[in-house]
Amino acid sequence: MRGRVFLVGAGPGDPELLTRKAARCLAEADLVLYDALVSPEALALAPRAQRFRVGKRAGRASIQQGTINELMIRAARQGKRVVRLKCGDPFVLGRGGEEAVALRAAGIPVEVVPGVTSASAAPALAGIPVTHRGSASGVLLVSGHAPEIYGELLSAAPPQHVTIVVLMGLQHRDDIARRLMAHGWPPSAPAAIVFGASTARQSTWTGVLGEIGNAPLPPGDLPGTIIVGEVVRLRGLIHTVEAEEDSSYEGFACSE
Amino acid sequence: MRGRVFLVGAGPGDPELLTRKAARCLAEADLVLYDALVSPEALALAPRAQRFRVGKRAGRASIQQGTINELMIRAARQGKRVVRLKCGDPFVLGRGGEEAVALRAAGIPVEVVPGVTSASAAPALAGIPVTHRGSASGVLLVSGHAPEIYGELLSAAPPQHVTIVVLMGLQHRDDIARRLMAHGWPPSAPAAIVFGASTARQSTWTGVLGEIGNAPLPPGDLPGTIIVGEVVRLRGLIHTVEAEEDSSYEGFACSE
Repeated sequence: MRGRVFLVGAGPGDPELLTRKAARCLAEADLVLYDALVSPEALALAPRAQRFRVGKRAGRASIQQGTINELMIRAARQGKRVVRLKCGDPFVLGRGGEEAVALRAAGIPVEVVPGVTSASAAPALAGIPVTHRGSASGVLLVSGHAPEIYGELLSAAPPQHVTIVVLMGLQHRDDIARRLMAHGWPPSAPAAIVFGASTARQSTWTGVLGEIGNAPLPPGDLPGTIIVGEVVRLRGLIHTVEAEEDSSYEGFACSE
Repeated sequence: MRGRVFLVGAGPGDPELLTRKAARCLAEADLVLYDALVSPEALALAPRAQRFRVGKRAGRASIQQGTINELMIRAARQGKRVVRLKCGDPFVLGRGGEEAVALRAAGIPVEVVPGVTSASAAPALAGIPVTHRGSASGVLLVSGHAPEIYGELLSAAPPQHVTIVVLMGLQHRDDIARRLMAHGWPPSAPAAIVFGASTARQSTWTGVLGEIGNAPLPPGDLPGTIIVGEVVRLRGLIHTVEAEEDSSYEGFACSE
């Protein structure tokens, strides 16, 4: 067996939201390099693997990307099955593409195992369908990491028939809202933030676009998914505490 | 145990891309109502359930949505655990929201189990990351079902730093390309269509936006995911036949 690397999506947090294929890759792995917020339960699916945390949380020091790539390449050359376990989906705002390019350039076989992205799971678990006939027939997904990244995209988003979803945008939520309003979105547009999606600490703020900047953040540095658009109104018709309690997982929320 | 309905995502086709939670819901189900293209292998995960196909393929007769809702409501009222198994993710272009609203209006407990959407999985399995530093920091996902649905959204998509992903748009691919070009996208913009993602029949056409209308469709009425943007170029650096062969599943492709 030649060594290879699997770029695997860990989903939004709840280990039950890993795919069956992700679980199988973990079971057969020799080495697992995982993002900071991947759950212990997900890692427990890789009992025979060496496991190293390599991911970062905003603002904290972490291993350099080049070092992560080197670790993967070296292990694969030794014939190991390497799993790079990334929050959400590896190719959705996760820099998985950069890792894949580096691995391929080194001649390492790479397989991508898609995962459930928070971009769809966080709204869904809060009772918000990102598309809905009559409300939105499309979704604009944007990284909220930095204004130079999201600025142009948000300024072109049509103020109707689309749902805006922003990952990693909590810090800039006020600026994100102001840019949307500057481009025709009404301050009264329905908005929501889902914190810690798929975990027992999941909570949802709902309000309007003009007040996103004032939305209180829950304690504990939880990742949050911002949703703006008419579909947020559907939460009132769909969401039930009952379903939320049944599905909650007592653990880590993954951020993308 | 009170009856309830689980709106479950089946992923893009390969039954290995169901989540662990989806598999558990199926194992415990009394009744499964499934989309036309859900695989026999996925259904085999529900050995004790009654199973009915209710989904439709474009242009073919199928059960009315109202009838599907009635079936679910009646079964849940009889105390049954009902799984509504939908291609991809139930709340991404899948009308799951409409089913959830109808069920809640009837007082039925509903739980959503997010799935892997073709919108991210199809590009990923073809070696195309939908976001990539320097190429695209966001994704516009649009239903290609009808011009009156996608027209406005596509006309507002900025011609750079975003990846366009269109599901269910094969029939209108020429019109979709023309609208993008009418709004500033160059005919030379990289484009791809991924057919039958995650199955053994997966194939990928790559070319440029101006030629999407001429892209040949493979035989067999496979669903296709259209991708437009700079990220398509990365396929040349990432894609390997080797990985594709290892991951292919001999079966059904799910369309959303």
